[in-house]
Amino acid sequence: MIGRLNHVAIAVPDLEAAAAQYRDTLGATVRAPQDEPDHGVTVVFIELPNTKVELLYPLGDNSPIQGFLDKNPSGGIHHMCFEVEDILAARDTLKAQGARVLGTGEPKIGAHGKPVLFLHPKDFNGCLIELEQV
Amino acid sequence: MIGRLNHVAIAVPDLEAAAAQYRDTLGATVRAPQDEPDHGVTVVFIELPNTKVELLYPLGDNSPIQGFLDKNPSGGIHHMCFEVEDILAARDTLKAQGARVLGTGEPKIGAHGKPVLFLHPKDFNGCLIELEQV
Repeated sequence: MIGRLNHVAIAVPDLEAAAAQYRDTLGATVRAPQDEPDHGVTVVFIELPNTKVELLYPLGDNSPIQGFLDKNPSGGIHHMCFEVEDILAARDTLKAQGARVLGTGEPKIGAHGKPVLFLHPKDFNGCLIELEQV
Repeated sequence: MIGRLNHVAIAVPDLEAAAAQYRDTLGATVRAPQDEPDHGVTVVFIELPNTKVELLYPLGDNSPIQGFLDKNPSGGIHHMCFEVEDILAARDTLKAQGARVLGTGEPKIGAHGKPVLFLHPKDFNGCLIELEQV
């Protein structure tokens, strides 16, 4: 069911500093920040040859990553995103096996303009997993 | 400097259950467990089309991931590993920019039989980063 690892997302306390570190210290290709008001985050994509790292910074008053940064003030790895071909089929298969889908269970449109869902970390070894239909 | 994302590593409280979940629930290609006594872990690799997920479980009495599992009993994302061409050059560049390398600073041989180093999470947005020479 799962295909490529689309990205690993890192919540960061200082987006400009983190982007500069990936660009200047780690020598990676770093894209411009994008505000994603529907998701409550500003995102910077780091392009690696085989996948992406997504730097996340809170946007607005109800950002879903603010609580994570409150608990982890230095930042940390927030989630990983696997690609699937059919997100509704994937969701139904996972739910039939007892996995919990976060929110309403209906896909939202993610940072890449494609449908996404998040799975409950308690059902997946403490890891927040995003599924993105490609 | 950094190249491909070699793997994302997940510390898990039950290696057999986690491997079965990736194989049966998430439909991924799951390799057989490998004991890595030099690193204090048993490892299961999940092969994705573009990278790997590495499931980690403590091996022996002084496993470096036991403390992580004590703090995160459900498991969690433990580190991510970037490939570099020359690990000594990468280390020296990073140290010259103030980043801390864990341990003695000399590369060890990692789970793939190649030299690896770990960077201090406090210097990288709370993320433990492994560098592997390829």
